[in-house]
Amino acid sequence: MREEQVDLLFLTTEPELRYFSGFLTQFWQSPTRPWFMLIPRTGKPVAVIPEIGMPVMARTWLDDIRTWSSPDPVDDGVGLLIETIAELTPSGARIGTMLGAETYLRMPLRDFDRLRTGLEAREFVDATDILSGLRMVKSEREIEKIAHICGIASDTFSKAGDLFQEGQPLDEAFRAFKIACLGNGADDVPYLVGAAGHGGYDDVISPPSNDPICAGDVLMLDTGAVFDGYFCDFDRNFAISTASDQSRKLYDTLWLATEAGLSAARPGATCAELFQAMQKVITKGGGADGSVGRLGHGLGMQLTEWPSHTLWDQTVLREGMVLTLEPSMSLGDGVMMVHEENIVIRDGAPELLSVRAPRELPVIGV
Amino acid sequence: MREEQVDLLFLTTEPELRYFSGFLTQFWQSPTRPWFMLIPRTGKPVAVIPEIGMPVMARTWLDDIRTWSSPDPVDDGVGLLIETIAELTPSGARIGTMLGAETYLRMPLRDFDRLRTGLEAREFVDATDILSGLRMVKSEREIEKIAHICGIASDTFSKAGDLFQEGQPLDEAFRAFKIACLGNGADDVPYLVGAAGHGGYDDVISPPSNDPICAGDVLMLDTGAVFDGYFCDFDRNFAISTASDQSRKLYDTLWLATEAGLSAARPGATCAELFQAMQKVITKGGGADGSVGRLGHGLGMQLTEWPSHTLWDQTVLREGMVLTLEPSMSLGDGVMMVHEENIVIRDGAPELLSVRAPRELPVIGV
Repeated sequence: MREEQVDLLFLTTEPELRYFSGFLTQFWQSPTRPWFMLIPRTGKPVAVIPEIGMPVMARTWLDDIRTWSSPDPVDDGVGLLIETIAELTPSGARIGTMLGAETYLRMPLRDFDRLRTGLEAREFVDATDILSGLRMVKSEREIEKIAHICGIASDTFSKAGDLFQEGQPLDEAFRAFKIACLGNGADDVPYLVGAAGHGGYDDVISPPSNDPICAGDVLMLDTGAVFDGYFCDFDRNFAISTASDQSRKLYDTLWLATEAGLSAARPGATCAELFQAMQKVITKGGGADGSVGRLGHGLGMQLTEWPSHTLWDQTVLREGMVLTLEPSMSLGDGVMMVHEENIVIRDGAPELLSVRAPRELPVIGV
Repeated sequence: MREEQVDLLFLTTEPELRYFSGFLTQFWQSPTRPWFMLIPRTGKPVAVIPEIGMPVMARTWLDDIRTWSSPDPVDDGVGLLIETIAELTPSGARIGTMLGAETYLRMPLRDFDRLRTGLEAREFVDATDILSGLRMVKSEREIEKIAHICGIASDTFSKAGDLFQEGQPLDEAFRAFKIACLGNGADDVPYLVGAAGHGGYDDVISPPSNDPICAGDVLMLDTGAVFDGYFCDFDRNFAISTASDQSRKLYDTLWLATEAGLSAARPGATCAELFQAMQKVITKGGGADGSVGRLGHGLGMQLTEWPSHTLWDQTVLREGMVLTLEPSMSLGDGVMMVHEENIVIRDGAPELLSVRAPRELPVIGV
């Protein structure tokens, strides 16, 4: 903050409030009430929150918690915010907030305009880099939580032969997977997408249909399960009864691309270099230009976080960064395949948090 | 739109995009990519979305889907948006977007500023009332989905005696409930909060601790389970082994407050009148001033939606509105209780979507 000449951080989003306070609740599902946190250059964070959150916030390490009765149609916390920011910063102060890539402001825009007007002697500046810089490098306690949920999902995927069968409607397969994840200790499975299609699939973000899984399909599930507020994010592919040569070849190329990613993922390398290492294998394997736009990303408190493994992301890898390696490949005929692992950057080779996918496309239901 | 002199709606949030297109994906969990939809006064919506979403959006009723390769660090869709809006509206047009209560703009604020600059001949105005007016009144198909998930949650709560036991850690009880909900046909249980405490509880938005459930506790679970993108939102209270006179009395008052709400919930009544009908019973029962700020709200594509049952909300109830009745009561000593049902406003008495809570506080584990 000193380097960027930011006097106070003004935060509105769930991961940021949780990062600085430990405040964890699914109540964010309700869009009704805004929640605010202020981080001064020195001293503890100050929470400015709806009264309903007081008992939970009071259990965190914060001392200064200011509340109002929300929702309020006339002033839903803006007056209290202006008063608090004016108390914490001098006139002319620079207030950092998240305005950049992969962020949004979780409050009505009308109220943010009121806030800016009420604090016109202060300047709102972009603090995305401060926050992303902090959050990209995980503490060992954060890594433990991510490793734990990666273990739960890996364990669940290892039961694929029991969970998934030919003839089973795809939505039933997804339901069985979710139930097994919860049974294995996941707190939640907020993200589970995937597909099943002959020799591959054409999209990777769909909810499941109720079409039955067929022999010859490649079934893919991509899961973001959660433990104590931390995500895993990886997928697995399974051939049902039989695997075509084409799907074996796609799988093989993606497995090798991930190997290339694992070899390139070293402290000091850039995300662009990591991308290139994987893309080289994909191109050699005959992959058409991908539409996913990147071959992996950060993860942690969110399913996807900075950085992005793309040609343009020059973020330098550092120890403690938790990342996905996510090569994907299309043959240009509407059939694609994705492959994903979760890793943490260490001094030397990265540590796999997900149990490495099998060397060959697993065939189940035989 | 004609009445409000809005020429085009500019939408960025999940429920709005889904409302107009049917586009349903958990991919919104990833904050990386923004998604946009434009609604002209006449004709079909136009989607401006990341390429990765094309296969799913192409299955909706939309014809005009424009994509860019996202994430893009230089121009993450803003250029395409400016071009498309300029094509769809004349100079001087009024672009409606959601700036009001219970909304936010799901795109980086920096990019919204670029959009406004790129379209400076057009004016961005608040369209919250247009959207909330549409979304508050549900179609019969929407009501069916909400009724279905309310039925699943009601059925799961009816098994409380099997799911919850004295000595069980609270997080295990929550996990058992989630698994049972999924087993009963829920697609997901994104919201499950609650508490267990002697004679009542002190907060209603917490994730569960791993403390064991004790005899004499009141156990409360409040769930937002989902079916095909539609939520239920209601809670149930259970006394473990034995119920104190105080907790029976709290429960009785809240049950009667809900009855008063059911009697008041008629087309033509206001949310304020509904609030007053319930609050009168709570005050008579000795309730201290509540901190929840309201006694129910709308629900549907989101866990909570407009309107709010508060003294200040003059929204007039209309047939087809789906609402929660959610009286809560504190005795001023840190012990509170909540009670909730889901209803749809009909011509005459409302229809209960949740199976009405038992008349007396159920005692389980005896």
